[in-house]
Amino acid sequence: MASLKSRLEHTVTPTALRSYLAEFISTFFFVFASVGATMSTLKMMPDAASNSSGLVAIAVANAFALSVAVYIASNISGGHVNPAVTFGMAIGGHISIPMAIFYWISQTLGSVIACILLKVTTVGQHVPTHSIPQEMTGFGAAILEGVMTFTLVYTVYAAADPRRGSMSIIGPLAIGLVSGANVLASGPFTGGSMNPAYSFGSALVGGSFKNQAVYWIGPLIGAATAGILYEHVVFPAQQEPDSLRGIPHGVEF
Amino acid sequence: MASLKSRLEHTVTPTALRSYLAEFISTFFFVFASVGATMSTLKMMPDAASNSSGLVAIAVANAFALSVAVYIASNISGGHVNPAVTFGMAIGGHISIPMAIFYWISQTLGSVIACILLKVTTVGQHVPTHSIPQEMTGFGAAILEGVMTFTLVYTVYAAADPRRGSMSIIGPLAIGLVSGANVLASGPFTGGSMNPAYSFGSALVGGSFKNQAVYWIGPLIGAATAGILYEHVVFPAQQEPDSLRGIPHGVEF
Amino acid sequence: MASLKSRLEHTVTPTALRSYLAEFISTFFFVFASVGATMSTLKMMPDAASNSSGLVAIAVANAFALSVAVYIASNISGGHVNPAVTFGMAIGGHISIPMAIFYWISQTLGSVIACILLKVTTVGQHVPTHSIPQEMTGFGAAILEGVMTFTLVYTVYAAADPRRGSMSIIGPLAIGLVSGANVLASGPFTGGSMNPAYSFGSALVGGSFKNQAVYWIGPLIGAATAGILYEHVVFPAQQEPDSLRGIPHGVEF
Amino acid sequence: MASLKSRLEHTVTPTALRSYLAEFISTFFFVFASVGATMSTLKMMPDAASNSSGLVAIAVANAFALSVAVYIASNISGGHVNPAVTFGMAIGGHISIPMAIFYWISQTLGSVIACILLKVTTVGQHVPTHSIPQEMTGFGAAILEGVMTFTLVYTVYAAADPRRGSMSIIGPLAIGLVSGANVLASGPFTGGSMNPAYSFGSALVGGSFKNQAVYWIGPLIGAATAGILYEHVVFPAQQEPDSLRGIPHGVEF
Repeated sequence: MASLKSRLEHTVTPTALRSYLAEFISTFFFVFASVGATMSTLKMMPDAASNSSGLVAIAVANAFALSVAVYIASNISGGHVNPAVTFGMAIGGHISIPMAIFYWISQTLGSVIACILLKVTTVGQHVPTHSIPQEMTGFGAAILEGVMTFTLVYTVYAAADPRRGSMSIIGPLAIGLVSGANVLASGPFTGGSMNPAYSFGSALVGGSFKNQAVYWIGPLIGAATAGILYEHVVFPAQQEPDSLRGIPHGVEF
Repeated sequence: MASLKSRLEHTVTPTALRSYLAEFISTFFFVFASVGATMSTLKMMPDAASNSSGLVAIAVANAFALSVAVYIASNISGGHVNPAVTFGMAIGGHISIPMAIFYWISQTLGSVIACILLKVTTVGQHVPTHSIPQEMTGFGAAILEGVMTFTLVYTVYAAADPRRGSMSIIGPLAIGLVSGANVLASGPFTGGSMNPAYSFGSALVGGSFKNQAVYWIGPLIGAATAGILYEHVVFPAQQEPDSLRGIPHGVEF
Repeated sequence: MASLKSRLEHTVTPTALRSYLAEFISTFFFVFASVGATMSTLKMMPDAASNSSGLVAIAVANAFALSVAVYIASNISGGHVNPAVTFGMAIGGHISIPMAIFYWISQTLGSVIACILLKVTTVGQHVPTHSIPQEMTGFGAAILEGVMTFTLVYTVYAAADPRRGSMSIIGPLAIGLVSGANVLASGPFTGGSMNPAYSFGSALVGGSFKNQAVYWIGPLIGAATAGILYEHVVFPAQQEPDSLRGIPHGVEF
Repeated sequence: MASLKSRLEHTVTPTALRSYLAEFISTFFFVFASVGATMSTLKMMPDAASNSSGLVAIAVANAFALSVAVYIASNISGGHVNPAVTFGMAIGGHISIPMAIFYWISQTLGSVIACILLKVTTVGQHVPTHSIPQEMTGFGAAILEGVMTFTLVYTVYAAADPRRGSMSIIGPLAIGLVSGANVLASGPFTGGSMNPAYSFGSALVGGSFKNQAVYWIGPLIGAATAGILYEHVVFPAQQEPDSLRGIPHGVEF
């Protein structure tokens, strides 16, 4: 028991608690902007599904918001803003499992609160959920979401890699851009979530869990694959101490 | 009286006067581009309120212009460009109250002049004001504007934090992007002002102060909350001298 | 005569000739992308003047292209890409008058060739020119173009200011963004040229010099005002040697 | 024979193999996002060819994705993501011919797999190919693609030039922006490929090789011209060892 306690102690230090708060705030903002932009386009054009200017609005909001969400949390929590990213970092050994669980809780909570806030302040405007068109299979959709999450998490790894030097300065921008590009590529197909917390929050408040599995299985597998591939194949770590690799500043392990 | 005079002396140094001019120029440009883009879309599509391509135009203009407005003023006045940001900085103790008042005056003046210029040069084209849809309440709208201003001011704090090192290089971009994302999220709801000077200037020249309180109360409370949360909870300052925190270069205190 | 010769010698050094070529290439690319995007939207939607998605396309092309045009020329010619910017730099004493004239020629040539290339390869598609709507006066339009060029040249000065340190890294982006924001703000009013070479090239190939004066007088006065204000009021130079201020690397004087 | 073997040995080192994988992943992502965005707009608006909001969606996806693709590969393979860029680098002597061939194979494979994935997961949605309008000639189209690829490769050279110092930090962004601007300028004319692997992959999976030559001849000639002009005229290398010029880190020669 003492061992268990000591293993969990690092998850309740002030620094750790601040990390959870940072993840909450960043995920809140990311989901607020992404879901809000979708609600805006739907309010303006009820048949937004058939107009690509709505897709641009949603993708640009997604890209801008994720860049900022990662930016403001980067030196506190590492700026995951996404349970799939946290999973990919845990697979790579850069965050402990207990801590990852608290990250997941914070991210999911941030997403749910953002959706509730939007629903309440806009007086019951419908909160849209991620969905797939009739002709697509859940399997195909999961692959699409998985591949897109792969590119996202791969970019997160690259942005956090200290061997890339000053290139990390534009890392938060790159992470936002990969997300926005994927939304543009998959908008009318899967919606381009790449983020289980985002899909869960909008599903809970929007009231439909249809195809929810697609937005968990795909992203988690894609994220794990990206972590393994980046770390062990494309750019294997060598003699550097682990503390230099992708671990957020200020998080104790 | 001597004490009062000495307390106000720092507000009229050449450096301080240059800061006011920088805030005037930057707020002028930001409001010019944001209001101008709204006028452009309204001229092209009189029913722009029902088309999301107009929303993209306005949000992109907002994001681009705020990035630049912050960028050009950053090492002179700190690049607030917004009374709510100045208020959030005053709450955190990074600018004195008398100086903050001169910042407010400069920002408001910049906004008013920008709207007048647009009205005059376009020969009486209507200057659009921020407004909320019928089904929304002023209270809900103020919350929405407050939450968005919270994310904006939180980002301003993060961008100005010297503990983040070279990450501050993309700070002006992040500040523009958070603003643009919020405009996309709230366009048909509150318009996404987050800036009392912007709302006041367009209301004065556009001739309607309806719901003006929404655009002052929400942003000011959101800004104060962001300043307090960033400074005291998420990333508390420690032994660093205050002169290192968020104070614009070249401003004397 | 010997004195005249020696005064002009610096304009024909290999470094100076390379600067002219760099200005030619960058202006060519900027005008190619801006005019090309306008032609693209007109081909897709012949009544693009009444749709704001066309405005977004043109403004984004303008912003992206100017960022890149400035970026690729920045350490060769200073990345002016615009006779108004060169004029503003000459007013500030950062480029000699004879050299500025060669810059102007290179920029104008680049613009004309870009428009000819577009006309020829698209098999006679109409090259659109800058124009103003009926209700506006040339005087109002010149003021609008002058104010926008003021913000552009002010940003160029800020980006080139060595006192801003590593902030100069995102300077080319800021210059592109200010231009794109201005295009969004003024699209259906003056078109947002801010660049006499751009307006001249499209007018020459498009076959209409109507209102051409607007696009020369406004920008040149705006640029001169920006140079004087930045240098002498907002951020006056002190004891630094002039060679440190805004002078492009690799240009001999 | 020994000589041949030793000449090829550098193409199968672990570092070289990792470069091929990096090029594969980056080109896969770039083509996935670009073709996916085109498919998205076509699904939403079957007559997207006549609406400029679709053009914005495609161009923004292109710009965002190329920025990220170059970013994540930049310190492994150099981030070419494009056979024309590899050709331009080979012309400048910065990559050996045998290695360039492996780069080409990796890039083409990445493009083909991306198109297959999109076709399969979207259940047979048509994969669009690059094409030119009836009134244009193949010769004119090749010139247009060549000129645009010139600007792209010129920017790649500038971004990789160590003499530009910290300006290289925003290099991947600049490369994405030049590509996006060119797509906006040429969308309804040639589609703005600038990338033989992209055009080949979509042609193979889309089932039409019409005008394919346009997308190889134009870009390759444009790329070679850019390499020669940058290296020998605009910014000639002097006494620096070749290893400092544009050669990707971690690639052995």
